[in-house]
Amino acid sequence: MPHEGTVTVRVRYPEVDRMGIAHHRNHFVWFEIGRTELMRERGLAYAAIEAQGVFLPVIEAACSYHAPAKYDELLRVRTTLRTLGAVRATFAYRLERESDDRLIATGTTVHAAVDRQGRPRRLPASLKTLLD
Amino acid sequence: MPHEGTVTVRVRYPEVDRMGIAHHRNHFVWFEIGRTELMRERGLAYAAIEAQGVFLPVIEAACSYHAPAKYDELLRVRTTLRTLGAVRATFAYRLERESDDRLIATGTTVHAAVDRQGRPRRLPASLKTLLD
Amino acid sequence: MPHEGTVTVRVRYPEVDRMGIAHHRNHFVWFEIGRTELMRERGLAYAAIEAQGVFLPVIEAACSYHAPAKYDELLRVRTTLRTLGAVRATFAYRLERESDDRLIATGTTVHAAVDRQGRPRRLPASLKTLLD
Amino acid sequence: MPHEGTVTVRVRYPEVDRMGIAHHRNHFVWFEIGRTELMRERGLAYAAIEAQGVFLPVIEAACSYHAPAKYDELLRVRTTLRTLGAVRATFAYRLERESDDRLIATGTTVHAAVDRQGRPRRLPASLKTLLD
Repeated sequence: MPHEGTVTVRVRYPEVDRMGIAHHRNHFVWFEIGRTELMRERGLAYAAIEAQGVFLPVIEAACSYHAPAKYDELLRVRTTLRTLGAVRATFAYRLERESDDRLIATGTTVHAAVDRQGRPRRLPASLKTLLD
Repeated sequence: MPHEGTVTVRVRYPEVDRMGIAHHRNHFVWFEIGRTELMRERGLAYAAIEAQGVFLPVIEAACSYHAPAKYDELLRVRTTLRTLGAVRATFAYRLERESDDRLIATGTTVHAAVDRQGRPRRLPASLKTLLD
Repeated sequence: MPHEGTVTVRVRYPEVDRMGIAHHRNHFVWFEIGRTELMRERGLAYAAIEAQGVFLPVIEAACSYHAPAKYDELLRVRTTLRTLGAVRATFAYRLERESDDRLIATGTTVHAAVDRQGRPRRLPASLKTLLD
Repeated sequence: MPHEGTVTVRVRYPEVDRMGIAHHRNHFVWFEIGRTELMRERGLAYAAIEAQGVFLPVIEAACSYHAPAKYDELLRVRTTLRTLGAVRATFAYRLERESDDRLIATGTTVHAAVDRQGRPRRLPASLKTLLD
């Protein structure tokens, strides 16, 4: 079983639209926070990876919205590294409302590795630690 | 063939991250602008639909990132209503760099209709005009 | 002396621009989080105030940027209610890097009170508790 | 009289909060677009200035909000370079609703010049063209 990272975020005022629910683009930001914290829990600082000239841009992203997130709610982001190949890594996310564990959203992002000039690279071997 | 809406957006400074490319969440905002303009081209103001108490929240969203978008570039958003059921509408998007038609991203969003209290409704019949 | 609220935020990836520093609009979002947490510390949930039909829009905002905030840094937001009149409230903010207390920014926001239709109202008397 | 740049922006869906008005942070993004377009009108591409290793971070920002901006409204941003010193430049902005010229907001930003490492530099002499 891959390690699951957990982090809590609070829905911010400008993240909520005039429907009164969190706008759908924010879930991808919360997923990114989940990914960063999963890495931090395993001793990998994403900022340090970038400092070595390796970047992990998103090449595919998807989200299913199960229930609306509202202003000021606490949301739990649960993140795992689902698959890790030579040049592709897929992370999976589960977003839950902390007060009652209600499922808010699920999603995935697929990442490649590139250097500062955007040229393809192999993924950092250190990502393997996220699978344990 | 469904009508295709076209609108141009310019990549804004804060939309670009420290990799020097547009952050992946912004593509969903550009898709939303494409959707709004497709509707406007067919005589449907999304604000007017909401004024009647009908909202069209996103229940699924996906994007494939083919090439990075950079600061100040002009991007063309091409939008079509791909399928329209009683309670689900799916829009498809194609994002291209205007200067050389390079494909930047493709994506889809699936929408439901709800009232102001978030209760399910049928989709507005007026959306059919987007299919012609 | 008015009560000072304190809350810590982490600089998010999309908040950082291609200069490698947090874009200047985000400081106003962090100030808003500081304001919300100051209120929560004194037993006032801003969401509850809005639920009673009172909104506190910003009518003036200002920020001085003393040092750049970088990706993944922890920032401490220190917030006080500086003045409270019948129809205007002014909050003051101090943003510091948590690791070394370096001053990142200072700012103020002035708020009015309006009802759901945007008509002027008196400020909620409950805000006085922020001055103790 | 300094040259005044003019550009129109449309209020985007996620820029509007649950009060139904554009959140106050967005005005700074629109001011930035105004600044960029003022420069472009005078033959200065801000991206080209940065490509030469000169960056113009905001060191002070202020906005007065006169009337709310609503979803889908067209706003006119009118921008001038108010003062230009050796190391400081101040831009002034006026935001108006296009349909009826109603004043939405006024504001200013003060900028310094830095190199890629954040060290102070003199402002580019080319900015003088904005004063004519």
